[in-house]
Amino acid sequence: MSFDKIIDRRGTHCVKWDMMEQIYGVPKDEGIAMWVADMDFRPPACVQEAVQAMVDHGIYGYFGDDSKYREAIRWWMETRHSWQIDPAHIFTTHGLVNGTAMCLDAFTEEGDGIVLFTPVYHAFAKVIRAANRQVVECELARDGDRYVMDFDAYDAQMTGRETMLILCSPHNPGGRVWTRDELEGVAAFAKRHDLIIVSDEIHHDLVFAGHSHIPMAHVDGIADRLVMMTAVTKTFNIAGSHVGNVIIADPAMRERFATRMAALGMSPNSFGLFMATAAYSASGAAWVDDLIPYLEANRRLFDDAVNAIPGLHSMPLESTYLAWVDFSGTGMEMAEFTRRVEQDAKIAVNHGPTFGKGGESFLRFNIATPRAVVEDAVGRLNTAFSDLQ
Amino acid sequence: MSFDKIIDRRGTHCVKWDMMEQIYGVPKDEGIAMWVADMDFRPPACVQEAVQAMVDHGIYGYFGDDSKYREAIRWWMETRHSWQIDPAHIFTTHGLVNGTAMCLDAFTEEGDGIVLFTPVYHAFAKVIRAANRQVVECELARDGDRYVMDFDAYDAQMTGRETMLILCSPHNPGGRVWTRDELEGVAAFAKRHDLIIVSDEIHHDLVFAGHSHIPMAHVDGIADRLVMMTAVTKTFNIAGSHVGNVIIADPAMRERFATRMAALGMSPNSFGLFMATAAYSASGAAWVDDLIPYLEANRRLFDDAVNAIPGLHSMPLESTYLAWVDFSGTGMEMAEFTRRVEQDAKIAVNHGPTFGKGGESFLRFNIATPRAVVEDAVGRLNTAFSDLQ
Repeated sequence: MSFDKIIDRRGTHCVKWDMMEQIYGVPKDEGIAMWVADMDFRPPACVQEAVQAMVDHGIYGYFGDDSKYREAIRWWMETRHSWQIDPAHIFTTHGLVNGTAMCLDAFTEEGDGIVLFTPVYHAFAKVIRAANRQVVECELARDGDRYVMDFDAYDAQMTGRETMLILCSPHNPGGRVWTRDELEGVAAFAKRHDLIIVSDEIHHDLVFAGHSHIPMAHVDGIADRLVMMTAVTKTFNIAGSHVGNVIIADPAMRERFATRMAALGMSPNSFGLFMATAAYSASGAAWVDDLIPYLEANRRLFDDAVNAIPGLHSMPLESTYLAWVDFSGTGMEMAEFTRRVEQDAKIAVNHGPTFGKGGESFLRFNIATPRAVVEDAVGRLNTAFSDLQ
Repeated sequence: MSFDKIIDRRGTHCVKWDMMEQIYGVPKDEGIAMWVADMDFRPPACVQEAVQAMVDHGIYGYFGDDSKYREAIRWWMETRHSWQIDPAHIFTTHGLVNGTAMCLDAFTEEGDGIVLFTPVYHAFAKVIRAANRQVVECELARDGDRYVMDFDAYDAQMTGRETMLILCSPHNPGGRVWTRDELEGVAAFAKRHDLIIVSDEIHHDLVFAGHSHIPMAHVDGIADRLVMMTAVTKTFNIAGSHVGNVIIADPAMRERFATRMAALGMSPNSFGLFMATAAYSASGAAWVDDLIPYLEANRRLFDDAVNAIPGLHSMPLESTYLAWVDFSGTGMEMAEFTRRVEQDAKIAVNHGPTFGKGGESFLRFNIATPRAVVEDAVGRLNTAFSDLQ
C-alpha cells in the first residue's frame, strides 16, 4: 500500500469530489476537494479482502451472529487504547451522526440545552437543532495556538436547562488531544451541572507522535453519565459502510438506549459488520501505524507552506487530518479569503462558521490525500495570496 | 444464473443457516433452514458487478449525489408497477423494519392502537410493542383456503384509540395478493376510523401468474393518510444491504417524516445505494422474470407433496416464497407437530404464533432455495408424518 497513489474519485458518487462544484462552485475538473472528512486512500488489504470475500460468496442475506464483530471491537479497544470493554455494552448505529442523534433521543427532551465546545464538528449542532434541542455554544479559549477550555466562563453560561454535553475527543477541528487534566475538568463540569457526557472519540486512532489519547471512560466518577462513541469508519476510511460503536457501561443508561434502538427498528448492515471485523485486527493495526506518519508528513508540509504565507496560520494538529487555518491575520473579510481559496486556488474547504462560535475566521482543509495533492494545494494557496508576500 | 446451484451459506454469518441450531435446535450439519425470509440464491449479475466495481475502485467514503438511485426507483415503480412516483418523495431507511418503526415514531404517540391484520409478519408487532404502542390484532377470516378481511368484525373491535393500520400487501404469511375491492375496503375502513395507512409492499415483485399486485397508492381518496413502503432487498435477495424505500406523496406527512429522519441523523450506506441502483434496471427485471417461475415451480412441488400428507395443508400462495402450512388437520398439539418438523425432519421454520392471532396451528416454510433442497425437505416431512398415511 502506497498512500502516494492517486486514485480518481470523480464520478464514483463520492460527495467530496463529485459535489464540490455544486456546493462550493469549485470546478470538478481542476478543483481539489479538501472538505468532507474522508481520505483519498484505499483501506487496508484486510478490509478489501473482506468485501471481496462477500462478493465471491455472493449471497447478501440477513446477518446473524455478531460475536466476532463485537470481539474485534473489544480487542481493538484493549490493544490500541488499553481500554477494557464488555462486548455486550456495544450498540451498532448507522455511523456516529446517527449515534449522536440516538443519544439526544434517548437521554434528553425537546428544549433541553446541549453543550458543545465550539468550534466543533458541524453535524452536532445540526442534529441538536433537528431534534428541537438548544445548542449551547461554550467557546474554546486559546492558549497560544492551542484550543483550551475555560470552565469559569462555561459555568457562568449555564442556565440549569442543560442536560447533555457532547465532547469531541480528540477535537475536530483544531486537532487537540485533550490531556487528563482537561478531561477531568470536563468530568467535573458535567457533574457540577448534572450533564450526560457523550464522548465522540472517532479520531482516537489518528493521533500524532508525542500525544496520547485518553478514553473518557478512563476518567473516574462519570461512568453513570457517560456514553462513549468510536467508529471504524474514520480510522479505516470506510464511511460509506455506515457503522458506529456506541458503548455504554452504565446499566440504566444502556437499557434506555437499547429501548430506543428497538423502538426504532435499528440494526446494522452486513458490509459494515464484515469490514469492521476485518479492520480491527493486527493487519489493520499495522496499516494505521503506516498511515499516521504519512499524515504527519502531510501536516508538516501543509503547515510549513501555509504558515509561510503572511496572515495565514494553521493550528498545530495533535490528531486528525483536518487542518484548521486562521485567516484573521490577512485582515480580509471571510468572503474575500474564501473567494480566493475557492475561486482562485480552486480548493473546496469547509467554512469555519459552520463549526460554531470561534470559527469565523477559519477554513478547514482535509490533508488526508496523496502528498502530491497537498503540494499542489499549497502551491495554489501561495499564488492566491501572493500579494501578501 | 441457475437457481438450482447449491451455495453453502453455513459459516458466512448468515442468520438463516448459522443460527438455526442455537434458536431451533436444528443441527447445523444436517438441518435445512427454511425460516428467515431471504433466498439461497445469488442476486443478478448486475448487482454483483456493482459491488465488484466498488471493490475494484476500493475507496468507500461518504456517498454524494443520489439522483441516479432515486431515478432507478422511479423507473422500477413505473415500469414494473405502473406507479408514477416523484423521486423527491422517497426516503431511504435502513430496511423496512426501521421504516415501519420510523412511521410509528413520526405519526403516532405512545399508547396508540396500531391495527394489524393477523397472522402477519412478526416484526410489526415487535416494533409496535418496543415503541410502547398497542397491537390491535384484527384476525383475518377464511374463504376456503384464502385469507380475507372481515371489516364488520374489525369495525366492532375499534375503540377510537387506533391511529394507524399497517397493511402487508401482498400478505405475509399466506401470500394473498389483495384485490382492488379488498384494498378499497381497507381504505374505507381506514377513513372510517381515521387511521394512517402504512402499506408494506415489500413482496410486490414476487407475484405469481394469474395475480396482479395493485399498489395502495392506486386506491383513491387516501393520499393524505398513506405511507408506501417497498424495498429492493426482498426482490433481489440483498437484505444485508439494509435499504428500504419509504415513499410519501402527502406534503404534510412527508415533512413530518423528514423531520424525524433528520432528528435521528438517518442516512443510507453506500452499498445499499449502489446495489439498489444496479438492481432496479432492465437486467434486474429480466432476472426477476426468471425467478418467479422458479419459485412457482418450487411452490407447486412443495404444496403437492405437503398436501398429500393427511392433516397438513399448505395455503395456496399468490405471492411470496413463504409457504404457510396448517397442521390443525393432524389433531396434534403445536408442540408435537413442531417437534416432528424440527427434531425428526430437522427443518428450521417460523412458528405460527409469532405472527399473531390465527397463526396458532401453522408453521412457515421458506421455499426460496434450490429445488433439490425443497425435494429433500418434503421427503423429510413425509417421513416425519408417515404414521398419518
